[in-house]
Amino acid sequence: MSDKAWGGRFDTDLDAVAARFSESVSFDQRLGAVDVRGSIAHVSMLAARGIVSRQDAAAIVAGLEQIGEEIARGEVTWDPALEDVHMNVETRLSQRIGAAGGRLHTGRSRNDQVATDMRLWTKEAIEGTCARIDRLLGVLVRRAPGLVDHLLPGYTHLQRAQPMRLAHHVLAWAEMLERDRGRLGDARARMDECPLGAAALGGTTFDLDRDMTARALGFARPSANSLDAVGDRDFLLETVAALSITAIHLSRIAEELVLWSTQEFAFVEMSDAFTTGSSIMPQKKNPDMAELVRGKTGRVVGSLVNLMMLMKALPLAYNRDMQEDKPPVFDAFDTVDASLDVLAGALEGARFDAARMREALERGFVDATEVADWLADRGVPFREAHHVTGALVRRCVAEQKTLSALTLEELREAHPSFDETLYAALDPETAIERRRLFGGPARARVHEQIEAWQARLRARGVEV
Amino acid sequence: MSDKAWGGRFDTDLDAVAARFSESVSFDQRLGAVDVRGSIAHVSMLAARGIVSRQDAAAIVAGLEQIGEEIARGEVTWDPALEDVHMNVETRLSQRIGAAGGRLHTGRSRNDQVATDMRLWTKEAIEGTCARIDRLLGVLVRRAPGLVDHLLPGYTHLQRAQPMRLAHHVLAWAEMLERDRGRLGDARARMDECPLGAAALGGTTFDLDRDMTARALGFARPSANSLDAVGDRDFLLETVAALSITAIHLSRIAEELVLWSTQEFAFVEMSDAFTTGSSIMPQKKNPDMAELVRGKTGRVVGSLVNLMMLMKALPLAYNRDMQEDKPPVFDAFDTVDASLDVLAGALEGARFDAARMREALERGFVDATEVADWLADRGVPFREAHHVTGALVRRCVAEQKTLSALTLEELREAHPSFDETLYAALDPETAIERRRLFGGPARARVHEQIEAWQARLRARGVEV
Amino acid sequence: MSDKAWGGRFDTDLDAVAARFSESVSFDQRLGAVDVRGSIAHVSMLAARGIVSRQDAAAIVAGLEQIGEEIARGEVTWDPALEDVHMNVETRLSQRIGAAGGRLHTGRSRNDQVATDMRLWTKEAIEGTCARIDRLLGVLVRRAPGLVDHLLPGYTHLQRAQPMRLAHHVLAWAEMLERDRGRLGDARARMDECPLGAAALGGTTFDLDRDMTARALGFARPSANSLDAVGDRDFLLETVAALSITAIHLSRIAEELVLWSTQEFAFVEMSDAFTTGSSIMPQKKNPDMAELVRGKTGRVVGSLVNLMMLMKALPLAYNRDMQEDKPPVFDAFDTVDASLDVLAGALEGARFDAARMREALERGFVDATEVADWLADRGVPFREAHHVTGALVRRCVAEQKTLSALTLEELREAHPSFDETLYAALDPETAIERRRLFGGPARARVHEQIEAWQARLRARGVEV
Amino acid sequence: MSDKAWGGRFDTDLDAVAARFSESVSFDQRLGAVDVRGSIAHVSMLAARGIVSRQDAAAIVAGLEQIGEEIARGEVTWDPALEDVHMNVETRLSQRIGAAGGRLHTGRSRNDQVATDMRLWTKEAIEGTCARIDRLLGVLVRRAPGLVDHLLPGYTHLQRAQPMRLAHHVLAWAEMLERDRGRLGDARARMDECPLGAAALGGTTFDLDRDMTARALGFARPSANSLDAVGDRDFLLETVAALSITAIHLSRIAEELVLWSTQEFAFVEMSDAFTTGSSIMPQKKNPDMAELVRGKTGRVVGSLVNLMMLMKALPLAYNRDMQEDKPPVFDAFDTVDASLDVLAGALEGARFDAARMREALERGFVDATEVADWLADRGVPFREAHHVTGALVRRCVAEQKTLSALTLEELREAHPSFDETLYAALDPETAIERRRLFGGPARARVHEQIEAWQARLRARGVEV
Repeated sequence: MSDKAWGGRFDTDLDAVAARFSESVSFDQRLGAVDVRGSIAHVSMLAARGIVSRQDAAAIVAGLEQIGEEIARGEVTWDPALEDVHMNVETRLSQRIGAAGGRLHTGRSRNDQVATDMRLWTKEAIEGTCARIDRLLGVLVRRAPGLVDHLLPGYTHLQRAQPMRLAHHVLAWAEMLERDRGRLGDARARMDECPLGAAALGGTTFDLDRDMTARALGFARPSANSLDAVGDRDFLLETVAALSITAIHLSRIAEELVLWSTQEFAFVEMSDAFTTGSSIMPQKKNPDMAELVRGKTGRVVGSLVNLMMLMKALPLAYNRDMQEDKPPVFDAFDTVDASLDVLAGALEGARFDAARMREALERGFVDATEVADWLADRGVPFREAHHVTGALVRRCVAEQKTLSALTLEELREAHPSFDETLYAALDPETAIERRRLFGGPARARVHEQIEAWQARLRARGVEV
Repeated sequence: MSDKAWGGRFDTDLDAVAARFSESVSFDQRLGAVDVRGSIAHVSMLAARGIVSRQDAAAIVAGLEQIGEEIARGEVTWDPALEDVHMNVETRLSQRIGAAGGRLHTGRSRNDQVATDMRLWTKEAIEGTCARIDRLLGVLVRRAPGLVDHLLPGYTHLQRAQPMRLAHHVLAWAEMLERDRGRLGDARARMDECPLGAAALGGTTFDLDRDMTARALGFARPSANSLDAVGDRDFLLETVAALSITAIHLSRIAEELVLWSTQEFAFVEMSDAFTTGSSIMPQKKNPDMAELVRGKTGRVVGSLVNLMMLMKALPLAYNRDMQEDKPPVFDAFDTVDASLDVLAGALEGARFDAARMREALERGFVDATEVADWLADRGVPFREAHHVTGALVRRCVAEQKTLSALTLEELREAHPSFDETLYAALDPETAIERRRLFGGPARARVHEQIEAWQARLRARGVEV
Repeated sequence: MSDKAWGGRFDTDLDAVAARFSESVSFDQRLGAVDVRGSIAHVSMLAARGIVSRQDAAAIVAGLEQIGEEIARGEVTWDPALEDVHMNVETRLSQRIGAAGGRLHTGRSRNDQVATDMRLWTKEAIEGTCARIDRLLGVLVRRAPGLVDHLLPGYTHLQRAQPMRLAHHVLAWAEMLERDRGRLGDARARMDECPLGAAALGGTTFDLDRDMTARALGFARPSANSLDAVGDRDFLLETVAALSITAIHLSRIAEELVLWSTQEFAFVEMSDAFTTGSSIMPQKKNPDMAELVRGKTGRVVGSLVNLMMLMKALPLAYNRDMQEDKPPVFDAFDTVDASLDVLAGALEGARFDAARMREALERGFVDATEVADWLADRGVPFREAHHVTGALVRRCVAEQKTLSALTLEELREAHPSFDETLYAALDPETAIERRRLFGGPARARVHEQIEAWQARLRARGVEV
Repeated sequence: MSDKAWGGRFDTDLDAVAARFSESVSFDQRLGAVDVRGSIAHVSMLAARGIVSRQDAAAIVAGLEQIGEEIARGEVTWDPALEDVHMNVETRLSQRIGAAGGRLHTGRSRNDQVATDMRLWTKEAIEGTCARIDRLLGVLVRRAPGLVDHLLPGYTHLQRAQPMRLAHHVLAWAEMLERDRGRLGDARARMDECPLGAAALGGTTFDLDRDMTARALGFARPSANSLDAVGDRDFLLETVAALSITAIHLSRIAEELVLWSTQEFAFVEMSDAFTTGSSIMPQKKNPDMAELVRGKTGRVVGSLVNLMMLMKALPLAYNRDMQEDKPPVFDAFDTVDASLDVLAGALEGARFDAARMREALERGFVDATEVADWLADRGVPFREAHHVTGALVRRCVAEQKTLSALTLEELREAHPSFDETLYAALDPETAIERRRLFGGPARARVHEQIEAWQARLRARGVEV
């Protein structure tokens, strides 16, 4: 007879290839700490309900606490022959406290146990990621005041478009990250239900106090349907979707750092501590960290696709396929967390080159919108104003000059409304300051946003 | 000179292949109604601020209202030569009201216009999908009371596991769908910011009243950063991620309908109105609707991957790539909406076969957990109780009998604690009723949930 | 009784929602031409075998030929009530020639019919895409000779790395595209089996001549297993995977065009015929075509994910899910084909700016590798040579000078081996010419490759 | 100054977070063996060309061989501070043989080195996977003769459709796997080019013998474009796409094993060695291996999406993002290889239950096609024959009888052509034997295919 936890009806043991294929402790060991916490809450409730004796419960709790400490100290050798983290912990417990250990699993199945563990783990992981987002937000908001006077071209289609303040650009990143944080928070709130008591799929016959375990483990409430509690993993899909969107946002920041690090843009110089060189080209200083952040995006999205494909068309309730939910979830958190850390470090030390940005601003007809707006302000229908300005740009390209180098006479050839007040409007600082709507790049508006961010982050305990 | 809206600086027109490749009106015409609404709000505000005259504004609004009606009646012929929905509407407007039409675009860019349109459209589409989810929830909750006494095996690993009530199973689907609804609602709330005023990327110089347009269009607030407002599409990624999870849930329901429709399970017979036959095999009655719902899952997830890949590593702010955000969003909504409708119809008319379910329950040792629990209740450590029962099952398999057919003597060979009270515990109804925890399948618990659902749905105006 | 092709055992008709949900003729009408061809081959064989009379077969063939012509002229109104393209064609046939039309479906099922249609369609579509790849290769190879003397920096990490010839860069694109073509060709060869005769899944009882239909339709052979022939779609997965890789290659070319079109790089100016402007910024000339090519990548990969998710875990043989295989396949071909066309046009007319490239080459220490190699040539271990050069670069950065501006004395401070022959080695032309290995950028090697390409393309009938 | 290989121009060392983020030796150590082989070939060629002395080359080769053996014995401790496998090997070499070690990197860059390593590794991995496919094919072909007389219903839409031989079904799996093998072989052939000599991106100035290294490493030829050789990874995309399709095929086999293992189907009993039980339900015997094979599909497809997203829109040539290509490639091979192994084991020992299959065949009107074909054989247009049979099935369903239980009179009510020869046609064996076309399920045809498979596999050295 097989000596597995489930071996009663089996004649022979699992084939070695199959055992290797199906063990999960090599990765689900990461649930060790939450598994122990979940078991302590469960057995404490069993004792409160008189389902196990106070004495047995005390022994079990003491044993589990010790195991928890061993896990924390990295002293546990996980045994693949014991399949998964749950059996590893329980076997260790029984070795330590004897037969009483066998009572821990009363009124519980590995199905509700792992569903509980994954929720506990994911809720904590979300908190960790949110703290990292906050740290990166802190860097952005601390740097922003110093970047208000860095004028650069804003880009659309990667073409110079209109004058911009770097602080405004950096706060756009902050808005993106803040929504990422919100998504993770929503996912956390939605998964905040304790599956314990659902057992394998249809509840247990033991008179458990589900509210008690839910409360003890910090859940908002027990889950309302046993089949759903053990049979769904949408909370992981939602979480990894939120992490994927975060990763995509980080890839966009990274892309801009890569671009700005080129000799062509040269808007930023990453510190030596966040760049590397080439084994063959001695001059190279590569924005590797930004490239790697960008390159790791697919890894997170790949994990999402993995999970979605995994859950597609699975009948209720638990299927063994669902064991495969863990590696993509762990990897998605690790990847996004590390990317957030490295971007925070890189941006903290990045040197932005105001002179190069200003230079870029002088060229590229970034002031053309001002010309068109100036005409529109004077009653010319915008579409006509646009056409007139386009023709002026075309002339300047051909004659290799800037718009501000056109004489009043040349301007009036294009449209009779032009007068010399136009020239002042073409100064980038002036142009930006005229964009003084809420949410715009004018100095006061940017400071308004910086202050709002400072207040928001301080309220969360982030240093700004 | 090109006659495009942007043609001022161009010598020649767009190549025909390029024009076909880059036009979007063939799909973004779907934004027609919200584009008109957005324009009406914009020009009304322009008039309120004195940026365009009351007279011009009135003409524009009247023209737009007419166009809106024509769109609603399907009378508009969209012209690909005019690139997109925005230029089609504006050109039509100018044809109708003359030069004043050119003033509509004052203080606005196609960048903030399309960002506004997509938010308006998506918010409405989410409401539509939520109503469809509610309709399906209504079907489930209306049918549930009639399915409380349909006992069937609950399955794990697609193996018969424990006795279950069909109503409890059906309410597990409801839990899943309710979370889908929540995710869509969260996405809707997060995107509830009005981009108008962001213009191309850096705000406009016109003194717009951003609060007024936001309010007029039903947005919670204006967006706080112009670059972010026109440069990000995370609200679409989040929405399609939520739709993907919904589609995966629907695929799981569909899979169970396909399985239950087999001659092997035969738990359900879909109505003729929701099944089809074979052109070659006259006996076939295929669960095509369920298969198609399942088959369309990849379509929604494919749209999500499309969008994520699209946005990866795009520098701020707008890039033309982002034009490609629309087809996957439209398709994801259409697919999920149609799947919800067809499942609602199919489940409304499905005939569940209580007799076949009961038959399945008699076989497969679904009562084995009862035996183990019975022993554990009498103080046998659960792991031991499990082992004893496993060995009994093995014996029954070999001797081709059920557990309830074992004599007391045979039982006592396996463990001395057994007595005749065991037999009553093996009845499925008894077994289920012993699972009377919150969230479990006992009759009272299922009715408790049905009532909770009825109250929840009624509060939303859903008929139950 | 239902009047569908399969309606014999059905009491009621399909629900309207279900009918709309399940019809496929709105998209599979695209198979019209190959469906007709397949039917002609089938019925001709039936006649040759005496299964239908010569007379009936002649009437059927004549009717189908007419329908084929009507399809080609776009005159067919496809009726969704008839579900799919097959029933539309067959119904039209019966309307035209009467009862004899009913004999066409003898010895055939829609399962082997659609499997045949999709193979025929996909084989042709692959030929079309290969012709488009050839056209783009033709553009590259025709332009290459004129780009041999365009020296520019080669980039790694988007940092200037080593001097490069633009012709060599452009031929790297050609290598990538050639492998894409090879992948499509391999897919085509692997799917070159005729399913006709497999019928629904288990073959037909009619004594068909499978070799005859296979030959008539241009297939290499009939398929060897009936279940596999109708139950698998791996040929579509392979094809769309090949198209996805092609799309990724095109996105890389597009990305370089976007970068090179920036004011910062300014290596290329796309023609007016392949760029567009901005509705608000009159100066803009945006590389929209390249952006759209890049943006459409996710669309193709999304289609691949769709198909893979669709086929995952489907039991044999046919399942209705598989109806959903068509939209992603059609869309993937359309997207890649249009992208190839638009890139061919854009590259044909692109103006590469040799002066700007040369300018970029002067800055960025692209000659540093030459210094290190010069030392290594003289016996200095490479790692040491690299270190010495890195230190020289650091000095030049600090002193804002180029390596060639260092005096011999300054050089010798860094390493005693330096002498004045170094300076000649720093010239980009010289540096490139020293890279004269097969596959390298030296002039002769590039010409060698151009000639090889010309020969290869001419052999395929491509004008070069 | 930094002590990295590339540290010459750097003031400070890499930040610790950045170092951890960017090291790759934790995963690329897996390239150790091929990296050593590549280096031996490279230095042998350098010696043959006189670029390094015979003496230095001999020392380097001897040192590398030792390191290769240490790697094989698992004795190497990889140092993350040395970034990657290449620097680990080279540093170890220099520690062992001193300064001469520094000459190994002459005429080479890490860019062409890693491109070579990945091709060598992938080519070998493909051979390993093909051998595993062959092993699984061997199991199928060895079992097939014993399954020729297992008659079961063939399914479409998971509904019983027509009678089938299990051997024919199993050979459909073989066809699918054979194409998977073909795809991997094509990928292998396409990547069979040696990048050595491409150096960083633009070739090296050293007079290497590229043919010699290509030959020594077993490549078909050196690569033809240096930029392409180091800048593309399409060979990995193609390989993982082929593995994804394989995984999807395996998921389909696995799905059928899961279905067939249910108590409802009960067509197969997996051996105890390839199933597991439940920790709470003692009766369970779960098809875990099949479930895990199915569940791991998304993992492979997720890796593909990862790689595709990674490469999207990367400009030439090397970017650091590409370091991320390794984990998904390694994982995809590991997953598919293990799945192949476990399925081979599971199918080797699976017990197919001919009696249960036969039982399923008796019910479900699987003989209805015979009735329709019988009519068509007698000149009734097929569509009419189908309708008549459908009506008969409807009658039988209502009266709860089988088609063969209908009297001749009852049959003639439906169509006057019926006579008693019909009854013989309804026997499943007879029905199958009438499907004697090439590729069909008739006994002789199945044996014909088994023999073809035996010959094919024997020719590859697979035991059958």
